Amino acid sequence: MIRKPLLLTPGPLTTDIAVRRAMLDDWGSRDPAFIALTAELRQRLVDVANGSASHVAVPIQGSGTYVLEAAVDTLIGPEDRLLVAINGAYGERMAAIAGRLGHTVETMVWDENQAVAPAMLANRLEANPAITHVAVVHCETTTGLLNPLEDIARVVSEAGRHLIVDAMSSFGALPIDLRALRATAILASSNKCLEGTPGLAFALIDRAVLEACAGRSRSTTLDLHAQWRGFEKDGQWRFTPPVQVVAALVEALRLLEAEGGPTARLERYSANLSVLLDGAASLGLELFLDPSLQAPIIVTFRSPPGLDFEGFYAALAEEGFLIYPGKLTREASFRIGCIGAVTSDDFIRLMSVLGPALAGHVAAA
Amino acid sequence: MIRKPLLLTPGPLTTDIAVRRAMLDDWGSRDPAFIALTAELRQRLVDVANGSASHVAVPIQGSGTYVLEAAVDTLIGPEDRLLVAINGAYGERMAAIAGRLGHTVETMVWDENQAVAPAMLANRLEANPAITHVAVVHCETTTGLLNPLEDIARVVSEAGRHLIVDAMSSFGALPIDLRALRATAILASSNKCLEGTPGLAFALIDRAVLEACAGRSRSTTLDLHAQWRGFEKDGQWRFTPPVQVVAALVEALRLLEAEGGPTARLERYSANLSVLLDGAASLGLELFLDPSLQAPIIVTFRSPPGLDFEGFYAALAEEGFLIYPGKLTREASFRIGCIGAVTSDDFIRLMSVLGPALAGHVAAA
Repeated sequence: MIRKPLLLTPGPLTTDIAVRRAMLDDWGSRDPAFIALTAELRQRLVDVANGSASHVAVPIQGSGTYVLEAAVDTLIGPEDRLLVAINGAYGERMAAIAGRLGHTVETMVWDENQAVAPAMLANRLEANPAITHVAVVHCETTTGLLNPLEDIARVVSEAGRHLIVDAMSSFGALPIDLRALRATAILASSNKCLEGTPGLAFALIDRAVLEACAGRSRSTTLDLHAQWRGFEKDGQWRFTPPVQVVAALVEALRLLEAEGGPTARLERYSANLSVLLDGAASLGLELFLDPSLQAPIIVTFRSPPGLDFEGFYAALAEEGFLIYPGKLTREASFRIGCIGAVTSDDFIRLMSVLGPALAGHVAAA
Repeated sequence: MIRKPLLLTPGPLTTDIAVRRAMLDDWGSRDPAFIALTAELRQRLVDVANGSASHVAVPIQGSGTYVLEAAVDTLIGPEDRLLVAINGAYGERMAAIAGRLGHTVETMVWDENQAVAPAMLANRLEANPAITHVAVVHCETTTGLLNPLEDIARVVSEAGRHLIVDAMSSFGALPIDLRALRATAILASSNKCLEGTPGLAFALIDRAVLEACAGRSRSTTLDLHAQWRGFEKDGQWRFTPPVQVVAALVEALRLLEAEGGPTARLERYSANLSVLLDGAASLGLELFLDPSLQAPIIVTFRSPPGLDFEGFYAALAEEGFLIYPGKLTREASFRIGCIGAVTSDDFIRLMSVLGPALAGHVAAA
């Protein structure tokens, strides 16, 4: 019997079987039952971040990158100027997407092992009044680094600029409370800490800001204003939605609530991280990040000298664990995710096989 | 017990339970097993249209509209000029998408009950040498009208222009043979005649043409050239794919082959249509289209005077059938689809309830 692997990756990741079973129905996308499901989806998404007083949830078909592009295309006008705070590949990607769309983009770049520094950001905003929007990645999946979102949001808000947050790998676990956090848009996807299946992304957008963005997007499919107006008009999606993925995400959001919300989920992921870090330390594996910057989302380890990653990956896959390649620009690494429908018991089991898998695929010195 | 409804719509539609069961697994999107599944998907898609000698399959996450926009953004250059042949809402949409992207767009408009006329198209192309691309909808889902694709393709090819075909609601059932048909791009989606679940669209594109389109798209996510290069480089998707929807579509393509390919599928849909038309005639329902233009995909009926569509819809839903509202610009209508995992037995059962449902919701004269 082949054991289905656990996905210790940044997503798609392991989902609860109840989430996948929710995909066993066909739905008419314009039927009242599906319209009700969509309404529940939108309400639950905004509620995860306590945003219903200020923000609207705009789900859109696609991966996380689709909603990044959609947000840039919809929210940033031709006279605007975007500053992207970069300390990894996903910050780089946001800047590249905006530049390709024809926007004026500035960047501030930190090393991959350094957090974005709010004070430096404040200085840059003060020095350059032309900047209208700031974009930042909450948890940089490149490394697993947690940027100081609350401090960044305070600085951007005090400078009177808009903040766009790529919360792809944090939303649903790390704290994002829109009653306190001043952010124009929070962007995330179905298949990370929400533990849904991939196929949907979404933006929580300040309603007053979004109202002013009619007709700004050059894209028809990625126009988040039109997408929002569509939902408000008749509760329906503008274009055929991935109905099974919607049903799965609603089920995943119900499970999130049943677990105790993001706080409880963060505790579970933190327990996963704890087992992982203890075990890795006992094997002599080096963390890439300073532990103070490490989010309990995904962990980057420096590859031991001579590691044959392909062989190591295959050995762990044989034991039922899929890990992830590294994405550092300067050194060999690999990543192990803490998120998804996995528990510390799974990590205890992982630890029983990680050492032998490593030992079998490090070249003799 | 609530009976799950059959979807007699243009999609999402009824799928085989084996297709939905294929969504019960989690997949690592960069794992060799999923890379193999993606390769099978791409090969099967191009094989449906006998296109492997000339065309490449470029799947992309999204609904059909996403791949329409992606094709326009990728294939049409700033110096090019697009002519859209319009006889329904989907032709209109293609022109609107291209215009919004900033392209120079011309249109030729026929009435919703008239097929696109190849001879008139030929005259227009001869009269206007600046036109570089022609777009047409194979089966206009607005009405269910079948446009004469082979004649259109011959005219466009003889004039030396590129043809982009929206084959959304025809691909997998109506004949499209790229060994004979000269078309630069064929666009379709997972959830119509292929009988997959919604969440994926795809383009079959002439390889030589696509090779020349590097960097042309302003969109990052909808760039079909980059998407294609990504698959060719390492077999992986550029962005997190909807893994369960991919697995479902591969299963659906296997079922299509097992059924006997598009020819057998067209026979089944034609049998569905035949039961539907006979039954409708016996109830005195009027077809909107001349029968010679009616594809066995979706049928538009004129609403009987005084029809309460909402009540009629609900009555049929109660019996386990979801039908579709009309989309005609000038008169009240409704639509019933013939496609999906449904058979003439289902239509015989539909006929037993259609009359009473209609009778109960037509206002007395």
